Amino acid sequence: MTLEVNSECVFCKIVAGDLPCHRVYSDDNVFGFLDIGPVSPGHVLVIPKRHFETLVDLPAELAATMGSVLPKMAKAVIESTGADGLNVLQNNGVCAGQVVNHAHFHLVPRVADDGLGYRWRAGKYEPGEAEKLCEQISAALAL
Amino acid sequence: MTLEVNSECVFCKIVAGDLPCHRVYSDDNVFGFLDIGPVSPGHVLVIPKRHFETLVDLPAELAATMGSVLPKMAKAVIESTGADGLNVLQNNGVCAGQVVNHAHFHLVPRVADDGLGYRWRAGKYEPGEAEKLCEQISAALAL
Repeated sequence: MTLEVNSECVFCKIVAGDLPCHRVYSDDNVFGFLDIGPVSPGHVLVIPKRHFETLVDLPAELAATMGSVLPKMAKAVIESTGADGLNVLQNNGVCAGQVVNHAHFHLVPRVADDGLGYRWRAGKYEPGEAEKLCEQISAALAL
Repeated sequence: MTLEVNSECVFCKIVAGDLPCHRVYSDDNVFGFLDIGPVSPGHVLVIPKRHFETLVDLPAELAATMGSVLPKMAKAVIESTGADGLNVLQNNGVCAGQVVNHAHFHLVPRVADDGLGYRWRAGKYEPGEAEKLCEQISAALAL
């Protein structure tokens, strides 16, 4: 369910000023603040002010506005923390690690040997599998 | 160094058609294709057609265009694969896991108990630390 404001949502409460945060950015549509449980110092969350549960629910125009904010936000975080790199992470669904059901981008500053990273292993497709997925995704995009 | 096309870049070669790929999306500015080493079936990369090394290097307008593509791309990947969720991951810098120096977003379909995820642990700021970071990031954004 997608609402403009969700009275149960902690991020909506933060945007409204009903819960405190360390705000680093605010414009008409986008809000940025320090994650309360930082993975690394300067870990920032970038969210839409309106309530949408996941990336898939975001209207294209709002997603564009959020996209336009990411480079300058990433640059500011890197410069301020002296990081050597940065991950943008965005989780959709409980199985993907989403905890707060208000779409958000994590910006995580990185330095060498910080112990952070992914649990993933590059796999291989069986013959014909990639072709089939490619057709299915292309078809879904065309709908 | 930022170039429109980098003759050494595998992603520029893929966009130009000089290397094969399983393409799922293409418009004037954005290109999407299956990752050759999928973390999960349907793992897609979304890239700008022009060569920029990292997110920080992307012009705001191009980053907006990429942002606008992400929701429909994520929806198509989830629908096509029957995933229960999806991670968007974007790595900037070697220390952050960037392997190809052409800015790209990973879209990784997820299902419960797939063993994927992050190596991260939520930390806590010392007294005054968050306030200082907040000021520094806000100041960097205002520059």
